[in-house]
Amino acid sequence: MAPIQLGVLASGRGSNLGALLEAEAAGTLYAHVALVLSDRPEAAALRRARDRGVAARLIDPESRRARLAPEVEARYVEALQAHQVDWVVLAGFFRIVGSILLNAYADRVLNIHPSLLPSFPGLDAQGQALAHGVRISGCTVHLVEAAVDAGPILAQAAVPVEDGDSVESLSERILVQEHRLLVETVDRIARRGFIRDGRRVRWNREPA
Amino acid sequence: MAPIQLGVLASGRGSNLGALLEAEAAGTLYAHVALVLSDRPEAAALRRARDRGVAARLIDPESRRARLAPEVEARYVEALQAHQVDWVVLAGFFRIVGSILLNAYADRVLNIHPSLLPSFPGLDAQGQALAHGVRISGCTVHLVEAAVDAGPILAQAAVPVEDGDSVESLSERILVQEHRLLVETVDRIARRGFIRDGRRVRWNREPA
Repeated sequence: MAPIQLGVLASGRGSNLGALLEAEAAGTLYAHVALVLSDRPEAAALRRARDRGVAARLIDPESRRARLAPEVEARYVEALQAHQVDWVVLAGFFRIVGSILLNAYADRVLNIHPSLLPSFPGLDAQGQALAHGVRISGCTVHLVEAAVDAGPILAQAAVPVEDGDSVESLSERILVQEHRLLVETVDRIARRGFIRDGRRVRWNREPA
Repeated sequence: MAPIQLGVLASGRGSNLGALLEAEAAGTLYAHVALVLSDRPEAAALRRARDRGVAARLIDPESRRARLAPEVEARYVEALQAHQVDWVVLAGFFRIVGSILLNAYADRVLNIHPSLLPSFPGLDAQGQALAHGVRISGCTVHLVEAAVDAGPILAQAAVPVEDGDSVESLSERILVQEHRLLVETVDRIARRGFIRDGRRVRWNREPA
């Protein structure tokens, strides 16, 4: 199998993008970040990509709505296809993608979420976990479907919640696992692939 | 602090009761199982208790309803109080307890549930976890409140879900952690105690 060509959508500092770029540079990721797209001109993710010589583009929705307008979403898809992207990673992308992207990349859009889904979907997952008083939280890499944070789960990592945790301290502990889990999962997709059976995902055997 | 006097309510084979009894016998649990109560004459938990010389009583609700009738629940409380029980453990008790028991033992009723709550409350938690396709499940020890499987969480343990897992194989892997977690949590309650802050629980320091 050829390495996966990744398109990464990010709105913020892009630390998960950074983990992918570092793993690629270190030779521990069987994938290439081919394109980074952002909805925000000030996203550090864009600079991070350009620093590594990776194509990076702002596609500004010019709207504050979380859900992308169809014509904007179509521009994202055009850019991804122009760069021969075959998997899309939402790495801290603050917009909700819809059927245009999900149809173009059916079962090939990943999201990473800072909780053990199905617990604590949506915004401020770490704050939700603290308020609920769980002793174990974590992160989840899943396929994106129309419902937010609800697609089939590819991988999870558990993270302990400490008595004195704040949202910041818990978020930081989870983020370390997010970086590892995202890199490992993309690498596993590229090397092994999986079969979907309803919501359950079964990984193929490692090729001999 | 004196060791905790435990009352254990169990409907089935009582393997979590067994873990408590073994830990007490081994001297690794700062608690004494003072009484075992069951709603089912055939519950192996009753025999298990008697084999260890622990008082064991059937209190038959003579009804198939999950929720105990008030007069039946009052008989459970009378039996617990007659044996100077100060903490109640629901260890595979198939009935729903109500305000009579919860008022008599406010914040002193524990339940162990085979999932990482708030994911998969209710019946067949392991089957729910498999159907949802999570990669990590586990178990939760929590304080019992009126809503089922929703009280403040005292402890959790994570358990990986394997690709080929059945309900049986996953349940067995979780059960090993249930035994450990329940014993550790009861021991911690006896030795340290905790402070409740809304839904969050903070353990006191170990006494010097």
